[in-house]
Amino acid sequence: MSGEVKILGFAGSLRKNSYSKGLLRAASESLPEGAKLEIFDLEGIPPFNQDLEANMPARVKEFKAKIKAADAILISTPEYNYSVSGVLKNAIDWASRPYGDNSFDGKPVAVMSESIGMLGGSRAQYVLRQSFVFLNMHPVNRPEVMVPFAADKFDANGVLIDKASKGFIKDLLTSLVSWTRELKGV
Amino acid sequence: MSGEVKILGFAGSLRKNSYSKGLLRAASESLPEGAKLEIFDLEGIPPFNQDLEANMPARVKEFKAKIKAADAILISTPEYNYSVSGVLKNAIDWASRPYGDNSFDGKPVAVMSESIGMLGGSRAQYVLRQSFVFLNMHPVNRPEVMVPFAADKFDANGVLIDKASKGFIKDLLTSLVSWTRELKGV
Amino acid sequence: MSGEVKILGFAGSLRKNSYSKGLLRAASESLPEGAKLEIFDLEGIPPFNQDLEANMPARVKEFKAKIKAADAILISTPEYNYSVSGVLKNAIDWASRPYGDNSFDGKPVAVMSESIGMLGGSRAQYVLRQSFVFLNMHPVNRPEVMVPFAADKFDANGVLIDKASKGFIKDLLTSLVSWTRELKGV
Amino acid sequence: MSGEVKILGFAGSLRKNSYSKGLLRAASESLPEGAKLEIFDLEGIPPFNQDLEANMPARVKEFKAKIKAADAILISTPEYNYSVSGVLKNAIDWASRPYGDNSFDGKPVAVMSESIGMLGGSRAQYVLRQSFVFLNMHPVNRPEVMVPFAADKFDANGVLIDKASKGFIKDLLTSLVSWTRELKGV
Repeated sequence: MSGEVKILGFAGSLRKNSYSKGLLRAASESLPEGAKLEIFDLEGIPPFNQDLEANMPARVKEFKAKIKAADAILISTPEYNYSVSGVLKNAIDWASRPYGDNSFDGKPVAVMSESIGMLGGSRAQYVLRQSFVFLNMHPVNRPEVMVPFAADKFDANGVLIDKASKGFIKDLLTSLVSWTRELKGV
Repeated sequence: MSGEVKILGFAGSLRKNSYSKGLLRAASESLPEGAKLEIFDLEGIPPFNQDLEANMPARVKEFKAKIKAADAILISTPEYNYSVSGVLKNAIDWASRPYGDNSFDGKPVAVMSESIGMLGGSRAQYVLRQSFVFLNMHPVNRPEVMVPFAADKFDANGVLIDKASKGFIKDLLTSLVSWTRELKGV
Repeated sequence: MSGEVKILGFAGSLRKNSYSKGLLRAASESLPEGAKLEIFDLEGIPPFNQDLEANMPARVKEFKAKIKAADAILISTPEYNYSVSGVLKNAIDWASRPYGDNSFDGKPVAVMSESIGMLGGSRAQYVLRQSFVFLNMHPVNRPEVMVPFAADKFDANGVLIDKASKGFIKDLLTSLVSWTRELKGV
Repeated sequence: MSGEVKILGFAGSLRKNSYSKGLLRAASESLPEGAKLEIFDLEGIPPFNQDLEANMPARVKEFKAKIKAADAILISTPEYNYSVSGVLKNAIDWASRPYGDNSFDGKPVAVMSESIGMLGGSRAQYVLRQSFVFLNMHPVNRPEVMVPFAADKFDANGVLIDKASKGFIKDLLTSLVSWTRELKGV
């Protein structure tokens, strides 16, 4: 139970000062001892096309390798149209392919979301959890990090400045690391 | 009640011989009188990035214009990871933006899906229906066109050869056209 | 377009001072002109048992008759375990039976929810919307009335005292009535 | 890792020859070594009313005690109106109460469903999985036991006669027992 837990994090938004990226940066400052977080940017992952599977784009290969090397996954997502962003889903679709090479198989996972409105991106989280069943991932149940009214909780550079949200993120990481140790014997 | 109902259809897969595209082609051969179906290919729509909204890619502008000009929408989707494809969701995200210019606002819509397995893509349909609430679209309830075991129902070129599925598609189009006339007074 | 729109409302909680019942009472004070709201209490509807369908309990018969006589339906629900209450779902199950006699068929519907926590019962609403597809109901898209932090917004007798929430309820009823007139030609 | 795994099973239908009960009976004949299945009948659990929480009905107390004594939970559900049955949800609502005494907390769980139609009750399963997040349960991902066209797969007494379905149930129980051992150190 003393090995380092390697977490791979990625955000479902490409915007430079994205709040979702901001949640990941906040997470990197709230890691429990014995855990490491690497952040992967989804920029450069093209729209999925099954005809191209045999020659996966280099950026997708890199993404898949990072996921496989990780002990646990941390996903941060905005909510677009009451669901996950297409950008996030597209990256997940690539990483789950080709058939028989789902990079996420068996991984523990935790989710964070944010929104301009009052629901904090919660609808995106439950859509994502449904995908975890097929992907055979094991999500942390609690706490659920859903940051509402994001415009008030980040500064102009996308840096999280809300103390309560930071606390939830810290608790989520602690849960994820302990859940990963339980499942993986890390 | 005698004007032509213009339907815009698009499929959530970029694969050349995609089954989802095959459903759309089948639909174009099952139109009730007084309806027209134009098919838009999502190829060329890049991953959504909010920083680029002010200068929308030309292909996105074209997509938005086609949606706005249509009386009704027909979506055909594969199911990836128990949800809609990222490619489809990404196109919807673009077309719903920028804030205040949701191209889908108030449109009637019908959905078709297919899958290799036994559930026919049904899980993708319910995820999509949740987005329709935010998009303020009005989905047809019945019939639900969900084509399971797709490998047996299309030929090698992605042409639908299953008679029962063709019948459901015809019924769906009839429903969509009549629902559109009811809502839009076309 | 000048007939009265008859709305039947029911709440998914049996508690005497239930917040969900409180939302319905608030609705009865916010009706647009030309609309009437009757409230039906789900007390007395037993757990559904298909073996008893041939001899429906009297209270269920009464519920079904009220639904059929209504032009539109208004559902108010708490959120239990991230879903609709069993009490509400059980009443809906009865009213949708026996096979071929779904009392809700084709009805316009609007939903309100509340919760102690921050999400306002939203998860229950999307679960309910999925049932509407099978029930062939036509839900209003907007506004979504989701009252969070209910303990602060009702008094000790379950009376809604929050002005903003009252405004949303009024807007929802206006939407429901106008949607009903559009669909039913009332 | 050699203690017996005690599983509590219950079905979301009260009908005497219910298919959901039939799945549970089939499960009791497919137990892996070292596992025991007790079946609890939801008959006698009244509609939930929070005003009665302080004096829980005896049948509810019994249900809660059985759940707490179990190492793992097995739920078998029909699909009514594209969701779990009200009867099942109502029993879950009781067992999750009162606040602070959720009997399901931390339990591993597996789900089976069936339907007359082609989707096998799958929609009910995903609605149920959303409740598991709040209940803090840990569901098995695979296999998903969804028995479509139930009328062909059970005899007139509700006995499962379909060999493939029996195989899936056996695999699900093996998964549940191994998942329980992993999580609980039983």
